[in-house]
This record gives sequence, structure tokens and C-alpha cells, in this order.
Amino acid sequence: MKSFHPTPRTLMGPGPSDVHPRVTAALARPTIGHLDPEFVGMMDEIKGALRRAFRTENEMTFPVSAPGSSGMELCFVNLVEPGEKVVICQNGAFGGRMKENVERCGGVPIMVESPWGERIDPEGAEQALIDHPDATLFAFVHAETSTGVKADAERLSARARAHGCLVIMDTVTGLGGIPVEIDKWEIDAAYSGTQKCLSCPPGLSPVTLSDRAVEKITSRARKVQSWFLDVSLLTTYWSGNGQRTYHHTAPVNALYGLHEALVLLEEEGLEKAWARHAKMHEVFKAGIEAMGLELLVSEEDRLPQLNAVQIPAGVDELEVRKTLLNRFNLEIGAGLGSLAGQVWRIGLMGHSATYENIVLCLTALEQALIEQQANINHGQALAAAHAVFCR
Amino acid sequence: MKSFHPTPRTLMGPGPSDVHPRVTAALARPTIGHLDPEFVGMMDEIKGALRRAFRTENEMTFPVSAPGSSGMELCFVNLVEPGEKVVICQNGAFGGRMKENVERCGGVPIMVESPWGERIDPEGAEQALIDHPDATLFAFVHAETSTGVKADAERLSARARAHGCLVIMDTVTGLGGIPVEIDKWEIDAAYSGTQKCLSCPPGLSPVTLSDRAVEKITSRARKVQSWFLDVSLLTTYWSGNGQRTYHHTAPVNALYGLHEALVLLEEEGLEKAWARHAKMHEVFKAGIEAMGLELLVSEEDRLPQLNAVQIPAGVDELEVRKTLLNRFNLEIGAGLGSLAGQVWRIGLMGHSATYENIVLCLTALEQALIEQQANINHGQALAAAHAVFCR
Repeated sequence: MKSFHPTPRTLMGPGPSDVHPRVTAALARPTIGHLDPEFVGMMDEIKGALRRAFRTENEMTFPVSAPGSSGMELCFVNLVEPGEKVVICQNGAFGGRMKENVERCGGVPIMVESPWGERIDPEGAEQALIDHPDATLFAFVHAETSTGVKADAERLSARARAHGCLVIMDTVTGLGGIPVEIDKWEIDAAYSGTQKCLSCPPGLSPVTLSDRAVEKITSRARKVQSWFLDVSLLTTYWSGNGQRTYHHTAPVNALYGLHEALVLLEEEGLEKAWARHAKMHEVFKAGIEAMGLELLVSEEDRLPQLNAVQIPAGVDELEVRKTLLNRFNLEIGAGLGSLAGQVWRIGLMGHSATYENIVLCLTALEQALIEQQANINHGQALAAAHAVFCR
Repeated sequence: MKSFHPTPRTLMGPGPSDVHPRVTAALARPTIGHLDPEFVGMMDEIKGALRRAFRTENEMTFPVSAPGSSGMELCFVNLVEPGEKVVICQNGAFGGRMKENVERCGGVPIMVESPWGERIDPEGAEQALIDHPDATLFAFVHAETSTGVKADAERLSARARAHGCLVIMDTVTGLGGIPVEIDKWEIDAAYSGTQKCLSCPPGLSPVTLSDRAVEKITSRARKVQSWFLDVSLLTTYWSGNGQRTYHHTAPVNALYGLHEALVLLEEEGLEKAWARHAKMHEVFKAGIEAMGLELLVSEEDRLPQLNAVQIPAGVDELEVRKTLLNRFNLEIGAGLGSLAGQVWRIGLMGHSATYENIVLCLTALEQALIEQQANINHGQALAAAHAVFCR
């Protein structure tokens, strides 16, 4: 067995996204103890920066020491007790995972479904709340990574809050890429991932819990089924009052990376980062459409950072991805679940959302499609993208 | 908020231990996709190297994408169903955590206890198995990080197997430092951590499951309560047959670090690493005893890699640790639980188990104790340590 030296890739799939060299450099800094005062100070800075990124005053805002799916599980295992009804909006893979989580907590999922690629209608969600007045929680996916659909988070949350539910939001692919307004939207629990618009390696899940959520957790009748994800234990580990109690050992170097990514985000400015993602989506879209390709999701519901591009008829989509990876060192994503074989998922997340990446992607995709004799417009994508970029 | 640059420390606490520069360099390699063929190949290499480190042929041997406590939770949530009786040996903090896990799974813990700092008597454990013939699982801590006690793993496991129990072993602090013989001892589920004798940063938990354990999981009556830790889902993610199914996003760069740490371990040789830990413990012990200090644990039950040193009367132990950290950039550990204020925990784990670290630690500790007017022998520790080192 020899040391592993990966071929550098350009990452334009559904995540991980390209990691800034300052973040990889931070990962390699000397490991110190997780109870070292310097480390504790850094944890406090991470909490503060995550609050600003989530736009919240929530005290319980911190990174879970595991990937995004553990952030999801943390929210459900702490907030759902057996027998509780949870209204879940599903229009892709991650709503389905919410259902799995609720069932494993002994909760009763009430599903509100839309086809993959379409948004959840707030009226339909409200009907479920009317039909189930005893529902206590409402969950939806802000940025559906499996389809590229953006939820109308503010309206969904307002309906749920009006019916007395606590609101859980999956914003794994949202945070840092599009507006996330935890306090303004009255979201009670949200989780994200580091490997999307924050442009860190995968492995951590920033979460935030409102005081209402913490109160519900504190007054639980029975212990949380997960020891590792029990918020009542994590509170004393992540609390900033100097009385830290040992819980688990935090992933020290991964947190160096997240800290540096948050420094980069603050240097750019959160709203400017949102604007860059929006702009790069427009640039990319112009190129894709000039090539004759189509996006799956209707314009108003699209996530700028995750573009589901419809695969033209007769194209061997796996062969195209192989060409991109092997010849251009460019990764794009396959379709997931019911969209497998129908779309590619092309990410413009975080540090991947740059003009040079878009030029590479359009060039490589056009080349691969030409080799597949696909029916596309040749030689027009780059000019169209450039025109939007220069606007 | 500015970039974080930690002060380099020498890590001689209960973990994390010093990380080899080749491991930190590996962390900083370019992030690639977790479904990239190159990454999948590296995962297979990690699985193979972990099998060799655990001394097992178990197919299900892989690193959980979260710290050691998640490896513990994985073993319990998959193997315990509600109502099942689990015999748990407790002689420190981590046996107590096992109890927490069993209870949260709806299992019934049957406790076999010894005082902190003493080993579990196999006869006492057997009595619990006789008294509870319907117990299905038996769990013990191989290397108790809270006390420095090593379990008689082979004998404990043999008794449990003779009574038809599956055996769960916590070897978070054991793997790579002392003999771990999963197949020979017939251990059914074991978990470890990367930040102890493997000398990686914290954040991953190597686990191994026997075919017997996998069979029990496969024939469960109800779903595992954790989605993130469900082995039936992780099997398809970590399987080496090329048909990987997306589960979560693996912590790519952390795995680069683990891979490099395993390359280093194979370069040294597993048995040579065990011998180095044993030797360095003797060197350290000679110095500590020459100073007039005593170790908590009896000689035959001691872990070489974690030394519980008794705090001399009248010494402000926190002040000593502060002196070590602030003047010598040296971290040692405080006592945990019932040993708080009574011992320091001094780790000689992985890359921390070197002669130069021992010299630094003895020197710094003697200096700090002199400043505390402790009743110790002055100026004899280094010569005693050196004599053993040169043997």
C-alpha cells in the first residue's frame, strides 16, 4: 500500500464542490487537543460565524461532527417523540430520507408530495396541516439536491407556524449559496453540509436550533434515542461559557477547514456570495440553452447552485460523464432516484461557481455530446455565456 | 474573524495524539468526489489495511464517518433490539457510555462492575452470564481510556462466546498500540478511533463486524433506529464490488489522512508498533517512578499507551497542566469522572510514543512539581528513563 495522491479534479457535481486552497491549507495545520483553550476559542468563532451565515441569534448553532445526514438525524431524533405526527414535504430524495428518519423515531409521517423537479405547493402543505391538526412538526427541503428545486421556504414556514408546528428545514445545499433567513422565516431547526456552498470537504453538518426547539427537547418525556446526537449532551460540549463538558472528541482538523471557509465567506460577504451564485447560474444557463439543452426545473423554482440538465435523447449519459472525468478531470453528477438517466446534476456551489469552471464545463460537455452525435447546436455556448458574464 | 493558526503542541493526553507530518500533508490533498473511481479504490485500500490492523478477515471492516463514539453507537444500535439483555463490563467511563447506548436502544443492561482503575474479573463476568442465560450480547472495553486499564480480552470473550453471546469490544485506544486479535478472540463487533494509536486527527471510527454480527443485523425484526449508522445501508456504500449505492457523503480529506496513517503503520509493521508502545511505556515508567510518582493501575493490567499517574498530595493539578501547556506547549490529560483530581492521564499513543516526547514530559512535569513544592525526587528521572531506553 502506497500513499494516495488523487488526480486533481474540477468538482461540478452535487457536492463536494471545489475546496479553496486556503481551506485545504488550514486542514494541514497542527492538530491540538479538543479541550485546548485555543481550540475552544476557535469553536466559539465558528459558532458566531455560523449564526451570521444562518442569519440567526440562536445560541444552539454549531457544526455536528459528522456529514449532513447526521445533521438531519440530529434534528429528527431530538424533536420527534414516538407517536408524534410530522408533516413532511417530499419532492425528491431528501424528503424521502426525512420520512425514514421520522419512522425510525417512532413518529408518524404525513406526506405532502410533488413530482421530482417541481416545488411543494404551500396550499397543499396547508391542507395537510388542516387535515392533521395534531401534527407538531413540519419539515421540508429548502434546496433539493436531487432535483435542483428551491422551496418557497418563507411561505411554507409561515403556514406551518400558523398551525402551531415547529419547522425543520434541510438546507444542506442552501447555506452560503442562496438566502437562508432562519430567524426571519421562524425556522426552528435547520441543518446544512460543509461540502456544498461553503466549499469545505465533506464531514461536518452545521445545525441551528431555535429556543422553541431547545425547549421542546428539554421537556422531552424520554431520552433521545441517539447518544452521539443528543442535544442536551451537546449543549454542554458546545456551550461558550467556559464550562465545557467532555462529550465526544471533535474532528479538530476538519473544524480548522470549516473555520477558514467561514473566514473566506465573511471576506466575500454573504450577500455577495448569494449574488455570485445567482450570476454564475445565469451565465451557465445561457451557455446550456445556446447549446440547445434544457433545464429540468421551471425558472422561478430553480436553485442557482444545482442545475438539473436534461439529457438529450439517444445519449449514453454514463459515457459523457466518463469523458468529462477522464479527459477533462471534470466531475458532474448523475441523476438520482427517479431522475437517474434523465438528467445530469451540475453544481455551481461555493468555490466551484466561477466563470472559468463554467467555460470548462460547457466546452467539455459540448465535446462529449458531439462525440455522441447528439442533436445540439455547436459552437454557440461560450459566446452566449460570455455575453451574460459581461452584463 | 481571522484565519486560525494554532500553537503547535506536543499531545500526550488521552487523545488526540501527535499527528505525523505525512498525515497532515495528506489531509491537504485535493478533494475529489466521493464516487470518483480513484476515491473508491482508496476506500478499498483502507478496508484492507484496517482488516490487517484488526487482524480479521471480516468483510464489514470500514471507518464510520464520525468520531469513536459513533462507532460505539453503530455497534449497539445495529446489534441490540428492544428487550434484549446485554451484559456490560464497567470499570471506567466508557463502560458507562455502553450502558447509555443499550438503554437508548431499549435493551436491558446487566452490569458487571469493578472499581475504576481495576480490571474486570472474568469469573465475575461469567457469573453474570450464568445468572442471565437469556443475555444475547456481551460488551467490554479493551483499553479503558479513563483509567489506563487493559482488559483480558481473550478470556472475557471466550466466556461470553461459550454462553452463546455475541461480543462487542471497545478498542478506541487499543488499535495499533497493543495486540488486537479480532478473529482469534472471536470478537463480533469492535470499534476504534483514529486519534489514539493510529495518530490521525479525530473524526473517524474504524469498525469491524463478524459474519455472525452481520447475520444478526440482517435478521432483525425492526429497522435500526439510526439511519446514518444503519449497517444494512452502509454495506452497499462500503462494498467493494463496484456497485456502490449512495448513502451519505464520506469525509474525503479525513479519509486521506487515515489512509496515510495506515501506510505509516504498515511501513513500521504492526507488531513493531506494539513493541514500540510497550518499550516507551517502560521508559516513561522508569522516569516517573524515579521521580517518586506512582501509576494507578497494577503492572499486569496497565495499558502502555495510557498512563494514569497519581497526583501527589497537596499539588494543584490544574496549575501543573497549565504550566505544561503554556510554558512547554505540552498537553497531558486530567482525570475523568471518579478519578478527576486524583490522576493525570499521560498518553504515549502512536506518533506520541517517542523518547523525545518522554524526555520533554518528564522534564516539564518535574519542573512544574518543583514549583508546587511537591515532595518528589529531583534530577533522577531522565537518567532512569535513559537507562531503560538503552537496554
